[in-house]
Amino acid sequence: MKEITSFGHGGDYNPEQWLDHPEIIAQDFEYFKKAHINTITVGIFSWAQLEPSEGNYRFDWLDDIFDRAEKQGINVILATPSGARPRWMADQYPEVLRVDENGQRNLFGERHNHCYTSPIYREKIQAIDRKLAERYGQRSNLVLWHVSNEFGGACYCDLCQNAFRHWLKEKYQTLENLNKAYWATFWSHTYTNWDQVVAPSPRGDQNLLGLNLDWHRFVSDQTIDFYEAEAEVLREVTPDIKITTNFMGGNPDDEHVFFDLDYQKFAEHVDIVSWDSYPSWRTDNKSSVQLAMNTAAMNDVMRSLKHDNYMIMESTPSQVNWHPFNRPKAPGMHRMGALQEVSHGANAINYFQLHQSRGSSEMFHGAVIGHDLRDDTRIFKEVAQVGDNLEHLQPALNAKAYPAKVAIVYDYDNMWALSDVRNYASQTIKYWQTIQEHYQYFWEHDVPVEFISTSDELTDYKLVIDPMHFMMTETFANKLKEYVAEGGTVVGTYITGQVDERYLAYIGGWPQALHDVYGVEPIETDTLYPSQRVAIETGQASTQAHDYATVLEVDQATAIAKYTSEWYADTAAITKNQYDNGQAYYVGARFDSEFMASFYDALVTDLDLQVPTAIHKTDVAIHINVRADEQASYYFVTNFSDVEQTFTVTTPMQDLLTGTTVGVGTYEMSAYESKVLVK
Amino acid sequence: MKEITSFGHGGDYNPEQWLDHPEIIAQDFEYFKKAHINTITVGIFSWAQLEPSEGNYRFDWLDDIFDRAEKQGINVILATPSGARPRWMADQYPEVLRVDENGQRNLFGERHNHCYTSPIYREKIQAIDRKLAERYGQRSNLVLWHVSNEFGGACYCDLCQNAFRHWLKEKYQTLENLNKAYWATFWSHTYTNWDQVVAPSPRGDQNLLGLNLDWHRFVSDQTIDFYEAEAEVLREVTPDIKITTNFMGGNPDDEHVFFDLDYQKFAEHVDIVSWDSYPSWRTDNKSSVQLAMNTAAMNDVMRSLKHDNYMIMESTPSQVNWHPFNRPKAPGMHRMGALQEVSHGANAINYFQLHQSRGSSEMFHGAVIGHDLRDDTRIFKEVAQVGDNLEHLQPALNAKAYPAKVAIVYDYDNMWALSDVRNYASQTIKYWQTIQEHYQYFWEHDVPVEFISTSDELTDYKLVIDPMHFMMTETFANKLKEYVAEGGTVVGTYITGQVDERYLAYIGGWPQALHDVYGVEPIETDTLYPSQRVAIETGQASTQAHDYATVLEVDQATAIAKYTSEWYADTAAITKNQYDNGQAYYVGARFDSEFMASFYDALVTDLDLQVPTAIHKTDVAIHINVRADEQASYYFVTNFSDVEQTFTVTTPMQDLLTGTTVGVGTYEMSAYESKVLVK
Amino acid sequence: MKEITSFGHGGDYNPEQWLDHPEIIAQDFEYFKKAHINTITVGIFSWAQLEPSEGNYRFDWLDDIFDRAEKQGINVILATPSGARPRWMADQYPEVLRVDENGQRNLFGERHNHCYTSPIYREKIQAIDRKLAERYGQRSNLVLWHVSNEFGGACYCDLCQNAFRHWLKEKYQTLENLNKAYWATFWSHTYTNWDQVVAPSPRGDQNLLGLNLDWHRFVSDQTIDFYEAEAEVLREVTPDIKITTNFMGGNPDDEHVFFDLDYQKFAEHVDIVSWDSYPSWRTDNKSSVQLAMNTAAMNDVMRSLKHDNYMIMESTPSQVNWHPFNRPKAPGMHRMGALQEVSHGANAINYFQLHQSRGSSEMFHGAVIGHDLRDDTRIFKEVAQVGDNLEHLQPALNAKAYPAKVAIVYDYDNMWALSDVRNYASQTIKYWQTIQEHYQYFWEHDVPVEFISTSDELTDYKLVIDPMHFMMTETFANKLKEYVAEGGTVVGTYITGQVDERYLAYIGGWPQALHDVYGVEPIETDTLYPSQRVAIETGQASTQAHDYATVLEVDQATAIAKYTSEWYADTAAITKNQYDNGQAYYVGARFDSEFMASFYDALVTDLDLQVPTAIHKTDVAIHINVRADEQASYYFVTNFSDVEQTFTVTTPMQDLLTGTTVGVGTYEMSAYESKVLVK
Repeated sequence: MKEITSFGHGGDYNPEQWLDHPEIIAQDFEYFKKAHINTITVGIFSWAQLEPSEGNYRFDWLDDIFDRAEKQGINVILATPSGARPRWMADQYPEVLRVDENGQRNLFGERHNHCYTSPIYREKIQAIDRKLAERYGQRSNLVLWHVSNEFGGACYCDLCQNAFRHWLKEKYQTLENLNKAYWATFWSHTYTNWDQVVAPSPRGDQNLLGLNLDWHRFVSDQTIDFYEAEAEVLREVTPDIKITTNFMGGNPDDEHVFFDLDYQKFAEHVDIVSWDSYPSWRTDNKSSVQLAMNTAAMNDVMRSLKHDNYMIMESTPSQVNWHPFNRPKAPGMHRMGALQEVSHGANAINYFQLHQSRGSSEMFHGAVIGHDLRDDTRIFKEVAQVGDNLEHLQPALNAKAYPAKVAIVYDYDNMWALSDVRNYASQTIKYWQTIQEHYQYFWEHDVPVEFISTSDELTDYKLVIDPMHFMMTETFANKLKEYVAEGGTVVGTYITGQVDERYLAYIGGWPQALHDVYGVEPIETDTLYPSQRVAIETGQASTQAHDYATVLEVDQATAIAKYTSEWYADTAAITKNQYDNGQAYYVGARFDSEFMASFYDALVTDLDLQVPTAIHKTDVAIHINVRADEQASYYFVTNFSDVEQTFTVTTPMQDLLTGTTVGVGTYEMSAYESKVLVK
Repeated sequence: MKEITSFGHGGDYNPEQWLDHPEIIAQDFEYFKKAHINTITVGIFSWAQLEPSEGNYRFDWLDDIFDRAEKQGINVILATPSGARPRWMADQYPEVLRVDENGQRNLFGERHNHCYTSPIYREKIQAIDRKLAERYGQRSNLVLWHVSNEFGGACYCDLCQNAFRHWLKEKYQTLENLNKAYWATFWSHTYTNWDQVVAPSPRGDQNLLGLNLDWHRFVSDQTIDFYEAEAEVLREVTPDIKITTNFMGGNPDDEHVFFDLDYQKFAEHVDIVSWDSYPSWRTDNKSSVQLAMNTAAMNDVMRSLKHDNYMIMESTPSQVNWHPFNRPKAPGMHRMGALQEVSHGANAINYFQLHQSRGSSEMFHGAVIGHDLRDDTRIFKEVAQVGDNLEHLQPALNAKAYPAKVAIVYDYDNMWALSDVRNYASQTIKYWQTIQEHYQYFWEHDVPVEFISTSDELTDYKLVIDPMHFMMTETFANKLKEYVAEGGTVVGTYITGQVDERYLAYIGGWPQALHDVYGVEPIETDTLYPSQRVAIETGQASTQAHDYATVLEVDQATAIAKYTSEWYADTAAITKNQYDNGQAYYVGARFDSEFMASFYDALVTDLDLQVPTAIHKTDVAIHINVRADEQASYYFVTNFSDVEQTFTVTTPMQDLLTGTTVGVGTYEMSAYESKVLVK
Repeated sequence: MKEITSFGHGGDYNPEQWLDHPEIIAQDFEYFKKAHINTITVGIFSWAQLEPSEGNYRFDWLDDIFDRAEKQGINVILATPSGARPRWMADQYPEVLRVDENGQRNLFGERHNHCYTSPIYREKIQAIDRKLAERYGQRSNLVLWHVSNEFGGACYCDLCQNAFRHWLKEKYQTLENLNKAYWATFWSHTYTNWDQVVAPSPRGDQNLLGLNLDWHRFVSDQTIDFYEAEAEVLREVTPDIKITTNFMGGNPDDEHVFFDLDYQKFAEHVDIVSWDSYPSWRTDNKSSVQLAMNTAAMNDVMRSLKHDNYMIMESTPSQVNWHPFNRPKAPGMHRMGALQEVSHGANAINYFQLHQSRGSSEMFHGAVIGHDLRDDTRIFKEVAQVGDNLEHLQPALNAKAYPAKVAIVYDYDNMWALSDVRNYASQTIKYWQTIQEHYQYFWEHDVPVEFISTSDELTDYKLVIDPMHFMMTETFANKLKEYVAEGGTVVGTYITGQVDERYLAYIGGWPQALHDVYGVEPIETDTLYPSQRVAIETGQASTQAHDYATVLEVDQATAIAKYTSEWYADTAAITKNQYDNGQAYYVGARFDSEFMASFYDALVTDLDLQVPTAIHKTDVAIHINVRADEQASYYFVTNFSDVEQTFTVTTPMQDLLTGTTVGVGTYEMSAYESKVLVK
């Protein structure tokens, strides 16, 4: 397959909005040069321009863009236009419009609002995809397919309901199996006919937990199936061109990474992972250091999907227009953020958008070229600087993130299950935030982390952290057991191992494998109100847990922290169990990050998890991330704070961006400054 | 009728969920013995198992349960299955599905969502009820019918709309009467045809106050009518078996007791009151003592419905799964709560659920037998202890709550009217909380209280408290007047006597009877924002009122407190009126509980309301409640706080639960401890 | 046209609610005398009484009211009944019912809920309007038509959708123009057929900013068109009788004045502006002085619509019943508020309602005659006092508000555009509050202000304040330029001049005229979270800006304040530009009122904006407003605070309300006191 041979710098470009202003298009290409733009992503939302009426295609304007790009050595990422259908299609084929959970069909409007099941929509998209592939597949500057845009959402039309029934029949084979899986005897919900299956709805069922979960799985699978319908045509016509679709990064305050789709499954279908990254720098509820940690975690999530380098498919040079408060980045922040993403494995920094749209909902979203049409603003200049930096980074192109010895389990089924759990307190479940709290320690100490799915191998890692694994299959419990038996170290927490993959409770207590590994049995969970605390003591320290405290019966394990309040005072809060060649820690309560740091300090030393380095920092505000290949290690050193920080170099290195040598000594970094040092 | 001859201990049991696990059912019955379970409630939500397809009944599994129960002396409460219909019925007869207030029919789903009017639903439920009665009516261990489950909600289908019109025609006879009652000339709402009557809807009328109120009344009446349709069959086939349906207790933070149904009316149709009690122990917004007071109030409400002993039909041994935070009870709390309810007149402590369901929405609701299938957990043991205690309480079975001399009026029409009133501030109406604030004093001083409806006799009481009686009929105003004339004492408050039963304002000021009784005329109500206060002074003390301050014109009454701020400074805030042989207090403003305590202190002394006792407490955290029959008085002494408390006994008594003698002296009670002392 | 020859005092009267209580109607008219009521507004919501069934009119009761009014010299304002249709009409012609934005047709209910487009509704209302005009047009006491009531809201039925398409065709002529205006290429929204145009809907488009804006414009135009359909009949039959409709004043906490309708356009169609004024006196979030300022602003808005005297068509003597907290006014407040409105140009103080309705949603809204039917309450007496005062004010009837030299621009298109803007932070846009913050200074210093539309002449003013003029036409930008060139002074702010009237961004930066006038170019807007601040310094003072800070490139202007924090530290925050004969200030950030006061202090002195007066106050709690005609100036002096204040008179004057002379000296005013002094 055709490889992309340089760091990408560019982004979404919609020249079809300016066809009556050729001078603007010409100027855009001049500005691309100045901004070191080497990639444009075209065709997103262009269906109405590409097929103005049914079967009547119009490619002249796009040919011209390919030509212009080619002329100045710009790569093209070509999008399929399924993100938004033309009005004529909604008029002629209403089935392409989504139906909501109440059964009401949408009118034409917005974007991403087509039925993923509709045979007609699939037929239409395949037709135009084929045309695009045939026409542009041989273009030398076509480097990547960008299928549709930010997939998400669900449709509840009859076609989808039928597809769902079909999916369930495949899975359960018999109604008896379905009834058992859904515990349908409860509230007389026994299905006696497949046609009785209907997606969850405010008008119908919302409490059949198994149904709710299967619906999430189906929506995800059906979306991937739609993607595959597009990819199939592209693969057939242009087998050499890689295919991606842009995933979404969500917000660090969310309770989960993007909720609608199982990206761990979806990633198997793309040739390279790409995603849209919009951290809310300068927010009022976290410092830039805290936000950098959150952004690092999301980059690691995305890299971990294929355990490989990836692309930033969208980002903003300045502000967005859909946050509650839309703040521009401060000077230096854009470069800081871009280099941070490269340090985690991103090989492209693309923008939404290269040229601001003049009207409609995103007219004020940040862009490389704004309404002012100027190339001398600080934002334009900061974009150009990033482009220039990326050119200097070229030697690091094939270097990959330094191999992690720490894995954190993140599981989509579990995420969906936890979002629907009624056993604790929905407002304090916070699955993703909890994972980030565990991650924080490692980020602050520059220890690389991989986020793994339950299908991933565990044996690559010295430490596996498996927080709040509420819905856990017996298969995975056994995998953990083997991993520990063979010498691995695992950290598990409260709210783990309660239900199987059908959302049925484990009967008779924990799965045996978990009991064996952890050497304890969770008996009760005390769910705390936000203002409530439970006291805890280790030998050395005392602290207070919040939100959750598990009452444990200790079997073979040793208590390394005990509760000192409530009726379970003097019982174990954290335990350690030697199991065969490995060890397993069970953290029974939710702690603050300070306490968890002391917990992980010991583990990191014990397991020798620190990356060897010749760069030493004095504050967590500086983060050091490493990409490495066989030739070299690239140390990305960044000051994420808004004040000066220092770091010390103990072996001479090269500064890749400036070409200067960095000798042994102590260096100052100004706010938001980034360096890339090579050894 | 067949009487239940022991305190009940048991609850909802759904063996139909475990028919493919006979070993679990067998184990359940073993565990019932260990837990002193003497009652099971079966058949709730079992329709799909009892009638898997139309007219095809299946009773084998239920026969077996009756047999097993009989074998170990367990009573059976048999539920009719109307709480949830089977899927086949929704498929074949869509009219059984409810329609929402916007006119959209529900899909199959959830529970309690059938149309109460549908002739087909009534026909189907009567058929299966008859089958159940015929098959199990002669079973020696059948002790009670449990009709449906937690009735509530409304349906807006055409059948219901027609039934509503019919109900209105019966009530108003002519459109002219209807138009007058609804003041329909306002906004040109005059009805010229009965078919124009439609239930309140966001799409139609929401401000016809009379219509809104009549709709509440109709929904309540129609639900009772549905209950009667079921009860009629049961009475016919099994005239000796009592019938109940489980009422709901709501949350102490609610603005009203269960809103949908007039339990005061409904109670006339059941043979014994039963209800579902789920106090939120260990909440963050009140102490256990405060919550005990709220729970006491709700128990008194339920006992007062028939002024007789009652049953707890549902409760949890540990946690629920539908609170925002689902906390387990602390050790001792379950027993404390169970004995509290017995002390108010409960003759049964039943659980939802005896065995946790393995899946679906309530899979994590607390249960006697949990997913761990263990009988050695603290929760199981605490349940068993309650069972054991109830056996020791047997002598007290026919004792009733000590007769109250204090009555608080709680009226459903008034509750509905206040929930829709636009004269004050909807967020500070707080009818039920206000009633609890009055109740608090008496609970803290162990003075029994009865909650009465406007139909109840007043003459049984020395003191009648009638707070916020906004919608008051002239009949009741006259009843109050006669009661006071004959020597009674009444306490009324702000927001009283504004509208008649049609929701029409009284013209020309207060009903004459109120003016006579209180000797004042309310002129204006000053509605305060939450941060605002009005100053008040009695001769002895000064305080501040919040929320509401009535400006009064004093006629024959005497001011016993006066405002000292606002333009109404120096006018009466609280008045006392001697009317004939009795006296009437008008409390014009809303006060804190400390001030009200000083107010009621005087009244309790004056009217000699204290119950004679040989047990003396030192803190309100201890509560003493008395059940008595001709033979003995049973003193339930409970420490509701989480710290040790003491009480003193001045006459030797017996400890009913331990059989020991309790001599004169001072005793310590640990946190949450309960004793039952007999004299 | 017939002029109204005295200050009006009266209000909405609905005797049709009391036709079966003639004694109450008789008593009402007696009470009118006592309360100095000289006007009644009848017929509002009376359609069901006037036309009880289709084509069957009944006027006898209204004839009687006209007779009674005539007998005691009471003027009649006659309303057309379109505010609420009778039930029979909804039954027979469902098209008269509105359809909501989801496409669902309403049921009969509430009021103001008819389709403005329906030909049948127009036919029916024209028929009854004609009957009313023919029957009562010659009545000597008919002084004004009151068309419908509080127009507002929208309908989305097919008739309206078609009318909208028609309106768009008129405006844009071609689909190409429409597509360009809506930037429809974005997200493939290109229209290829006029039938594809659908109003914004949650089910369809909500982000086509141009469509959203045009829909607001259309709804406003179509409502005016409906009004015109009624007015046309009235003008034809009774050409001498003026016509009005009652506008709404909204709440000072709102982000805009009444949102649904462009009152600046609508005002061209009425003969006199009238509006409904309900300030929330005694609220908890502002002092009475602050609220007086807000109320003053709204009165000035209403006067400015026609730059002429106007009427208060509704107000309450005491409380309303639709605020979250419904507080009665304190003694004196009603008179204070009534005279305040007169001082701004109101020639009538009317009430909703003269007699409280006995039932339905507004049964507890304040009224002159309450349910108590008393004429000796403080509220009745305060109403009577206002009536008496208005009689004494008779000499001032034709005096008008003192001519303002300060204009504040308030533009409806801009209001709608800002309500939909996605560039900043929707919760801090606060267009109307911002305008009030500018207004506050002038009010506190008794400097008259006129609110002008973009169509108004600027040359009448010495100072034009043009805040947050986000959507500004080039025409208006040029108007500003000419105004300044000719010597005017303008103050503009952040968030100005971003889009044209189509909601398309200006390309290439600011419109040239703005750049010329202000001598600066805005480069970036820093949108702050509520807790964030930016530091600023003038030569003399330092302060902090909140919400918004514009980064400016300064061209010809001079910086008079600079930022001292963030990356734009040391750049201009406020600039002053001499342009030709005038000057232009650009206020780049949002400041508190204290800072703006220092800014305006200089301008007021500079431009000599103070009104000459012989009355001097010592506190902003006293406000002095002037009405003047050729004969005299009437100084309305009011103490809006709840404590005593003083003012000094330096030339002897007359007290118009008492007839006494007010000599040179210092005078005390009690809380809420008002005086009218004449020179």
